[in-house]
Amino acid sequence: MSREPIGKRRWAIAEGYIPGTSTGVGRAFESHETACLLNAGSTEANVEITLYFADREPVGPYRVVVGSRRTLHLRFNDLTDPAPVPRDTDYACVIDADVPIIVQHTRLDSRQSPLALISTIAFAAD
Amino acid sequence: MSREPIGKRRWAIAEGYIPGTSTGVGRAFESHETACLLNAGSTEANVEITLYFADREPVGPYRVVVGSRRTLHLRFNDLTDPAPVPRDTDYACVIDADVPIIVQHTRLDSRQSPLALISTIAFAAD
Amino acid sequence: MSREPIGKRRWAIAEGYIPGTSTGVGRAFESHETACLLNAGSTEANVEITLYFADREPVGPYRVVVGSRRTLHLRFNDLTDPAPVPRDTDYACVIDADVPIIVQHTRLDSRQSPLALISTIAFAAD
Amino acid sequence: MSREPIGKRRWAIAEGYIPGTSTGVGRAFESHETACLLNAGSTEANVEITLYFADREPVGPYRVVVGSRRTLHLRFNDLTDPAPVPRDTDYACVIDADVPIIVQHTRLDSRQSPLALISTIAFAAD
Repeated sequence: MSREPIGKRRWAIAEGYIPGTSTGVGRAFESHETACLLNAGSTEANVEITLYFADREPVGPYRVVVGSRRTLHLRFNDLTDPAPVPRDTDYACVIDADVPIIVQHTRLDSRQSPLALISTIAFAAD
Repeated sequence: MSREPIGKRRWAIAEGYIPGTSTGVGRAFESHETACLLNAGSTEANVEITLYFADREPVGPYRVVVGSRRTLHLRFNDLTDPAPVPRDTDYACVIDADVPIIVQHTRLDSRQSPLALISTIAFAAD
Repeated sequence: MSREPIGKRRWAIAEGYIPGTSTGVGRAFESHETACLLNAGSTEANVEITLYFADREPVGPYRVVVGSRRTLHLRFNDLTDPAPVPRDTDYACVIDADVPIIVQHTRLDSRQSPLALISTIAFAAD
Repeated sequence: MSREPIGKRRWAIAEGYIPGTSTGVGRAFESHETACLLNAGSTEANVEITLYFADREPVGPYRVVVGSRRTLHLRFNDLTDPAPVPRDTDYACVIDADVPIIVQHTRLDSRQSPLALISTIAFAAD
């Protein structure tokens, strides 16, 4: 394609909170938060995520790769390096990529049954 | 109207996931995802949707037409050509139109009863 | 204030759907959609809303006034002039104001109990 | 970091409504609204929030500080100076900061059990 890849290189999500409990059965219904990353371009995206907290220094970068023409729905629950994401704790994040990507934020909250959901486009830096 | 049509020609939705099960009765309560397309202009919009996945090549374009001064709330569940959208599978999409449109993304998740909902404005390319 | 008023004069909401049934008691729990309008400026905002449908001509304008330094959480359910908004029907809207405003879209769906909610910032035209 | 801090200095949330009742137990399940503020920069953010209502003059500013490289998930329920935020009342807000921040709006509605959630990126002024 001759068109410029769609997206931005810098994103932020101000709302982060992984509920510490779940009522559903299996991974699908576990309380979780996701950064949905879309790399529609023809070059692999190297992504760095930095987590911010209320009362401690930022943690990161967490590094993930999104292949060209691929989407990665990354669960914050699954992040472990350099440290797991604490549950029941307010956080936020900045997401940097070396090529344009699109970021959407989603939470599934199954502390009570049935589950509740939120989703929003993340903030794209100019 | 002399004003320029409202919208953008290029959009993306990074979060896509059609739950594979439903608890409601009828089409209204079936788990589904929708791309709500608004064409407020005076020219028909020819729209192409390309789907992206985690681990396979993109599929598309899916082609739909949104009449002038019309809205089309397009269910991803209903797409069949060139291929149906797999259920319980992470995906994302890029939406291209030949005139400015507005795109909003919505999911109804009725795997558990009662249903849960998400909605967000999609990402508009500059 | 010497600062420019915050907001945009032209907005759109692509997702519109007022569920035709409700399970809750009273206005608070009735299934409804709202355009939340904020006019933070010092001049009254004259607002015109045009509704778009899947298979008929647009309806409008609906006219509302948002006082200076006031917010109006306008229920689409309450619109009657020039015509009520049909229930269980896909629609969308364009919102024009003569001064900058901010628009957020919300739905409360109480077809099943307990209720489900969605909300998103609307699309702001440049 | 040599990069410019991410975010904007002026934000608005048009949808505000703190449900007056709750069914859950404890602070986590109390019906509430939150402005999630992320200050990813190296300078403390001094933030002023002004609340707007349907039928009375604005109230504020409410003043909060977000430390450098910190996030503050501020509950509107907790604001008291210059006045508490009324429950079951439509409101909106403008958020001004002296350095770039990111703002996301979230509501937890536990009037009925189980809870419902909404979230959206706030409107960022240019």
